[in-house]
Amino acid sequence: MSEKQIQLEPVAVMRSPFDEKFGIPRQSGLSDHATGEVVFLPPYDDPAMLDQLDGFSHVWLTFRFNANVEAGWRPRVRPPRLGGNREVGVWASRSPFRPNALGLSVVRLCEVVTAPRPLLRVAGVDLLDGTPILDVKPYLPYSDAIPGAQAGYATDAPQPMLPVRFATQPAEWFTAHGDEKLRALVVDVLALDPRPAYRDAVEPERRYGMRLAGHEIRWRVDGDGVEVVSVCLATDAVEVNAKG
Amino acid sequence: MSEKQIQLEPVAVMRSPFDEKFGIPRQSGLSDHATGEVVFLPPYDDPAMLDQLDGFSHVWLTFRFNANVEAGWRPRVRPPRLGGNREVGVWASRSPFRPNALGLSVVRLCEVVTAPRPLLRVAGVDLLDGTPILDVKPYLPYSDAIPGAQAGYATDAPQPMLPVRFATQPAEWFTAHGDEKLRALVVDVLALDPRPAYRDAVEPERRYGMRLAGHEIRWRVDGDGVEVVSVCLATDAVEVNAKG
Repeated sequence: MSEKQIQLEPVAVMRSPFDEKFGIPRQSGLSDHATGEVVFLPPYDDPAMLDQLDGFSHVWLTFRFNANVEAGWRPRVRPPRLGGNREVGVWASRSPFRPNALGLSVVRLCEVVTAPRPLLRVAGVDLLDGTPILDVKPYLPYSDAIPGAQAGYATDAPQPMLPVRFATQPAEWFTAHGDEKLRALVVDVLALDPRPAYRDAVEPERRYGMRLAGHEIRWRVDGDGVEVVSVCLATDAVEVNAKG
Repeated sequence: MSEKQIQLEPVAVMRSPFDEKFGIPRQSGLSDHATGEVVFLPPYDDPAMLDQLDGFSHVWLTFRFNANVEAGWRPRVRPPRLGGNREVGVWASRSPFRPNALGLSVVRLCEVVTAPRPLLRVAGVDLLDGTPILDVKPYLPYSDAIPGAQAGYATDAPQPMLPVRFATQPAEWFTAHGDEKLRALVVDVLALDPRPAYRDAVEPERRYGMRLAGHEIRWRVDGDGVEVVSVCLATDAVEVNAKG
């Protein structure tokens, strides 16, 4: 090991509804229904370490883009913000494909739990389930909030939200299951249009699928927005696939 | 090495006027005269990696508190903000004495230099000279700036700035050397009152000294604020000490 290498270890693990990369909002804070838990790992789980954190409304998470490390990095990336067809330098991006594969997200702190296991309930999450977290810091408005900051190619607000409607099966499914929390999350995630940024045109017949909070969600996009075409438990989906 | 350990390496090194920990502002952005350079290290110094970064006004630096790693961490810390005599959990603080010893600072991006060696000229620095930098990210106001955020015990503005005056020797020295940049930095740093937060009372006779930008600065604090009592090149100070 080179002398200049630095060894770190996870202090916590993220529990989030994002079972796969596809569908994750492109920054933190975009969906307040994207809730999760920062579960501290021993020996970093002493409740004393959390004392007075509950006075803060937001926390920074420094994490490792674990699922992207193998892919490595290149000097230039194509940010979704630019339609996926223009390149910028990786230091001018928040791309996961970067040297050291470190991520940085600010999330809303909903609750500090100390027992039986120390964890933070947070909202506005954009981390894959199981992501190793290397640091947790309180958000300090007086140094961290710079409203007049200029953001070059990323100055404009994120893309407009698409309207989301439900076909008969998912509409009935959500009514039957009464899972308003998942329904709200599905609306948030699909309104942000998680399709790959680079595509030739709207393809109304193309179906997309993702696994979210243990469910298999399928949808399509047309000129009127997003239509959710099916929802089921991921275990059911596996059985259907196995049978089919 | 444990399987869960993560190996990172520095992508850049910080060049800053802060030759020692004493005197460093307690957050980034507190002194715009605290300028420095983020000097990229090979193989992370390809100019293509910086393409379009110059459109951003601020960047995040994720770094390692190198000088604090040996000291380790404890579950509770005494933040200067609370006068240094009240404890909070380390996860509720930005203390350098933390698991993984990671730091996070947002600095103003003054200039992107690509040749002869890629580096960033930045301002509002609060990093020790020589600090290893693990990541550089553009500041994105739409996700990073949360003006309404609540900050618990750190809600109040940082402590009031002390007035800074100069005794005869430093007044004449700055006039003779015409080093307005260093003079402005000295004023900023001392106005922030870098003395240890925990102290019994103002001790007007107590002299403090620090090394800043290669200079040895000495000062004292009384009811009227800070008085700079001497300034000289650090090499001169060493000679004086060696002779004395």
